Amino acid sequence: MRIAVVGASGYTGLESLRILHRHPNCEIVAATSEQRAGQPVGDAFPAFRGVIDLDFENANPEALATRADAAILCLPHATAAPIAAGLRKGGVRVVDLSADFRFSDPALYEAWYGPHGAPELFGQGVYGLPELYREEIRNADLVAAAGCYPTSVLIPMVPFLRAGVVHTEGIHIDSKSGVSGAGRKLADTYLMAEMDGNAMAYAVTAHRHGPEIEQEASLAAGSEVRVSFVPHLLPTVRGMLSTIYLRTKQPLGEDQARAILAEAWADEPFVRMLPAGEAPQINSVRGSNFCDVNVIADERNGTLVVLAAIDNLVKGASGQGVQCLNLMAGFEETAGLGEAPFAP
Amino acid sequence: MRIAVVGASGYTGLESLRILHRHPNCEIVAATSEQRAGQPVGDAFPAFRGVIDLDFENANPEALATRADAAILCLPHATAAPIAAGLRKGGVRVVDLSADFRFSDPALYEAWYGPHGAPELFGQGVYGLPELYREEIRNADLVAAAGCYPTSVLIPMVPFLRAGVVHTEGIHIDSKSGVSGAGRKLADTYLMAEMDGNAMAYAVTAHRHGPEIEQEASLAAGSEVRVSFVPHLLPTVRGMLSTIYLRTKQPLGEDQARAILAEAWADEPFVRMLPAGEAPQINSVRGSNFCDVNVIADERNGTLVVLAAIDNLVKGASGQGVQCLNLMAGFEETAGLGEAPFAP
Amino acid sequence: MRIAVVGASGYTGLESLRILHRHPNCEIVAATSEQRAGQPVGDAFPAFRGVIDLDFENANPEALATRADAAILCLPHATAAPIAAGLRKGGVRVVDLSADFRFSDPALYEAWYGPHGAPELFGQGVYGLPELYREEIRNADLVAAAGCYPTSVLIPMVPFLRAGVVHTEGIHIDSKSGVSGAGRKLADTYLMAEMDGNAMAYAVTAHRHGPEIEQEASLAAGSEVRVSFVPHLLPTVRGMLSTIYLRTKQPLGEDQARAILAEAWADEPFVRMLPAGEAPQINSVRGSNFCDVNVIADERNGTLVVLAAIDNLVKGASGQGVQCLNLMAGFEETAGLGEAPFAP
Amino acid sequence: MRIAVVGASGYTGLESLRILHRHPNCEIVAATSEQRAGQPVGDAFPAFRGVIDLDFENANPEALATRADAAILCLPHATAAPIAAGLRKGGVRVVDLSADFRFSDPALYEAWYGPHGAPELFGQGVYGLPELYREEIRNADLVAAAGCYPTSVLIPMVPFLRAGVVHTEGIHIDSKSGVSGAGRKLADTYLMAEMDGNAMAYAVTAHRHGPEIEQEASLAAGSEVRVSFVPHLLPTVRGMLSTIYLRTKQPLGEDQARAILAEAWADEPFVRMLPAGEAPQINSVRGSNFCDVNVIADERNGTLVVLAAIDNLVKGASGQGVQCLNLMAGFEETAGLGEAPFAP
Repeated sequence: MRIAVVGASGYTGLESLRILHRHPNCEIVAATSEQRAGQPVGDAFPAFRGVIDLDFENANPEALATRADAAILCLPHATAAPIAAGLRKGGVRVVDLSADFRFSDPALYEAWYGPHGAPELFGQGVYGLPELYREEIRNADLVAAAGCYPTSVLIPMVPFLRAGVVHTEGIHIDSKSGVSGAGRKLADTYLMAEMDGNAMAYAVTAHRHGPEIEQEASLAAGSEVRVSFVPHLLPTVRGMLSTIYLRTKQPLGEDQARAILAEAWADEPFVRMLPAGEAPQINSVRGSNFCDVNVIADERNGTLVVLAAIDNLVKGASGQGVQCLNLMAGFEETAGLGEAPFAP
Repeated sequence: MRIAVVGASGYTGLESLRILHRHPNCEIVAATSEQRAGQPVGDAFPAFRGVIDLDFENANPEALATRADAAILCLPHATAAPIAAGLRKGGVRVVDLSADFRFSDPALYEAWYGPHGAPELFGQGVYGLPELYREEIRNADLVAAAGCYPTSVLIPMVPFLRAGVVHTEGIHIDSKSGVSGAGRKLADTYLMAEMDGNAMAYAVTAHRHGPEIEQEASLAAGSEVRVSFVPHLLPTVRGMLSTIYLRTKQPLGEDQARAILAEAWADEPFVRMLPAGEAPQINSVRGSNFCDVNVIADERNGTLVVLAAIDNLVKGASGQGVQCLNLMAGFEETAGLGEAPFAP
Repeated sequence: MRIAVVGASGYTGLESLRILHRHPNCEIVAATSEQRAGQPVGDAFPAFRGVIDLDFENANPEALATRADAAILCLPHATAAPIAAGLRKGGVRVVDLSADFRFSDPALYEAWYGPHGAPELFGQGVYGLPELYREEIRNADLVAAAGCYPTSVLIPMVPFLRAGVVHTEGIHIDSKSGVSGAGRKLADTYLMAEMDGNAMAYAVTAHRHGPEIEQEASLAAGSEVRVSFVPHLLPTVRGMLSTIYLRTKQPLGEDQARAILAEAWADEPFVRMLPAGEAPQINSVRGSNFCDVNVIADERNGTLVVLAAIDNLVKGASGQGVQCLNLMAGFEETAGLGEAPFAP
Repeated sequence: MRIAVVGASGYTGLESLRILHRHPNCEIVAATSEQRAGQPVGDAFPAFRGVIDLDFENANPEALATRADAAILCLPHATAAPIAAGLRKGGVRVVDLSADFRFSDPALYEAWYGPHGAPELFGQGVYGLPELYREEIRNADLVAAAGCYPTSVLIPMVPFLRAGVVHTEGIHIDSKSGVSGAGRKLADTYLMAEMDGNAMAYAVTAHRHGPEIEQEASLAAGSEVRVSFVPHLLPTVRGMLSTIYLRTKQPLGEDQARAILAEAWADEPFVRMLPAGEAPQINSVRGSNFCDVNVIADERNGTLVVLAAIDNLVKGASGQGVQCLNLMAGFEETAGLGEAPFAP
């Protein structure tokens, strides 16, 4: 399959190149970047010298449609939608890593992201979390890959909501992310001299991924779910942990809790249920598409502590996008994603 | 005042040396280390070459009592108690950084730490958190400096428990610590090659600081408090964040919540209330005795998100110990602790 | 080809598993570890859960010979030699990552490493640096993969020695390595709390890789070469830089110097000559088998500054081993090694 | 003494505030920042909240002269000179951390830094390295504190040049710096996501500190000295190592070499000669004004390996500035600089 990586010079764009480069069924035919157009990929990013033999080009949906069967969009929200629309017109199948097609309620999208860039397509994307929507993704032409935080939260949390064993309000989600989640953003906060050794919460209960989590959690629970979502920045580049505090309706032992989680994802190729008491860690998933999960029951306090780790650039972005592409194209779902995690 | 630093070769011991070295009213007269006895401090730890002109010696309470007016114990739990007993016999005032004198219930201590090393002294230590027990510390001869996690949790949380505005069960505490909190422990987990870029929860709802937090929180609330305490390890050396999720009994606006926190600590020299919406961060407190706090109200979900940052080796250990010593000795409470944080 | 990874629980062992797992022509049939024998690989190292479906076993050369066509030895020096001997007896082709078969002078080996573990095999290994000994490796049954530092030094330096344009004494080599080069060593120096943010020289002009460099450099120059080799430890996990200071016999312009380096390695799949003035960096090679090189001429001072970057665990160890295996087996030389570097 | 910190919002400016805040003889009366004028220091930099009770103001030399006895200039080169001129007119004693007054040859300055901002003052600054120019600094009104790299190179190297035991050309200097040396620069290179785990040479033999080193080295040697100076960036915030390769004229044993270095700096309060064979490391000097030095002789190869470590923001900038101020004002030379290094 011929693939265009649109917005290829950002971190999720480069990660898409990295994954697709080794994909047995895909050929990268274009890498776009407005800022770098005309420059060889390997000149701009020396890691790719001798690996990706393409020049960056401007993102022209019409032109791309003549050369690509599918595209993965690694663009900021709002920018992605019109490009997606153009590509769809040309018959190109699209996986969009931005938030533009993740929401079903236009008002909610607009409240958090501003005016939508292609209102005619709004709501036509399938939510790109294969663990929840595998069949829908298989049949989709436009997939909105789930956000990084929502991925790290929904996979471990949804089974308990579906099972109806936990309260749907008073949910507390404490997530931690490496700095690559912000993209290559030139702001003081992201400088090595400011962030090395540092850590802090940010956008406390006000992060855009909060409503995305609530949308999908509510669908899973069959009723409105409310979460207090608090993201934190870690002094590392890649990796994301979520620690989710759920209050049980009835006393629930750890064995039962573990059974609920394990059974929900027993057949998933990328969800790894850890042994009792073992906490997921970033270094066990880095560079891979795995989502490691576990649950520990604090029966004394009526709380389940649900834990997950992902690589925010892989299962939280580009890997998830490729997993969706694989489903859409009828490839092996794990194609290009079988690499062992990168550790130490 | 002549001070002995007992257990001076570990991280909290060295940090005690660092702080006491600049203390205007203290003279370090002994630095003990069983492992390093006989070695000059500066040979063992080149940072201190030309700074601390002492040889490590064995910890002999009787001998120390002839030379020291006070001692700061930087020993593992169980080891500290008998030394404390010996020093007290000799009339030496003691600040113990271990857990040996933090508990009032012997069974609780024993359940988490094993047999106590000086049962006759059990319960005679004053809990060394000046923000809670300033007057008691002033009059004490044996102070058990609060643990690092409890310090980072109690300072921001107690005002809400005292005010009675939050539920006392279903409390979720998500803490994050730099690796120095574990001491100089030779285990795979703490190797640079394993921990750099890594992060994970550990001892989930099973950490020894959980019962310590509950003891003091219950005293503050006037009724039993139950918390789910989940510590995490960060890929950094120093620093500790706590994010505490409290459910309000009645709707509570952020202004009201901020007023409760700000008023509680208005006169504290080391608690800094941050402007609305600003999250405490490690790099703003590193190397200092400050505890930065804030609270953000998630009214939609009936939750207060309470935040704190400390340096685990300073306000979480040696700095707190010196603050207690200052109170016991009648020095300026901030003596030796006025350094600006170390940033960048 | 059926491969045994011997000493699979150390960093180079795990890295060999990681690379061979994706190798199109290899099947990992055994992973040995004395310390972990009986334990599933994925239990001991959660990164490999669901990836490598093997239990660690003891290293029994006879038993391994019945199941493996080739073995990669990731053992400490001295331990490797007898295992290699056993495997060779069983007809297994061996790539040894230790120093045991890198030297041609037994006295030199013994002076730096102590008594050899299989004297009858001494000197029978081909030095495993394909850029220097490709044809010999193709025909070898026992290959001693080059050390990490020597790899990062010889590739950029040998062309100038062969060209005869630089002095062969007074050579100064300043190398910098991530901590994984030391293996999973439980010593204070390698603790996160000691090494994060730190850096220092070590084994100044007394590192075992010095004589290895001199052996190969002398062969390249056709006369004795003497180097002052100073390794440094960097506060990172992977990656190695070498900065080599060569004094020119005659004035030599940068264009000429660049031509010498570029032409020497023009056909090498893993050596990347950078554009004029661009310095190799760790993040451009991490996780890959690339060796990025460049040279900058300081004509004023009669000095060539020769630069190289590798990933010490890949081109400096396991990747190099697999490259050698590929040559020995007649596979595509780049098989299993085509991954893009891991960045950011 | 009343001090103004001019350009107080950059890293060396903040570090000057940090050091002067604890200085027993100094009162900070002004902190200037064009970008932050009007903002409280503690609002802009939360580490300083409750520590420095000043608002940033614009740098108006005339106004400052009415309130300050001395000033430390933490400004970019070219910007510093006219401010220095204005302050001198007002009788304010000036320590300038920029390069504006470090050179004696105007053409050399201009070649590397462009047009000078106060030609009338050019050459009137005393080179601010107390180990070389203590007496001149005592009597100076304008001191140009030595650059960070030159400090880390000159202190360990000058004794050998003065002793005349090494060649004055073919000197190779391999320096490594933390990223704070670049200041708070918003460029891709300095982002956490780009620099964490990374390292590389830069400005190879083309860094502005090269000619500064050569100027002072030549003065020390009494003849022209030529060096190949290669700076590197380390994945850490603070700290600087220099590894200097000197070729001996005659065979020189390590004891002799150590004696030359030790005797040269025997009375220096901030130079620490390490025991034989021990390499200086960043973590032993971080946060302090120390320069740790050592020398190892490679007699076989006619080379001395000279080593030094400093904190680039302290002995390499603000601490050195304060040391100079102390000399100028007749204070204890170590006043405000007695803090133990910050480790772990």
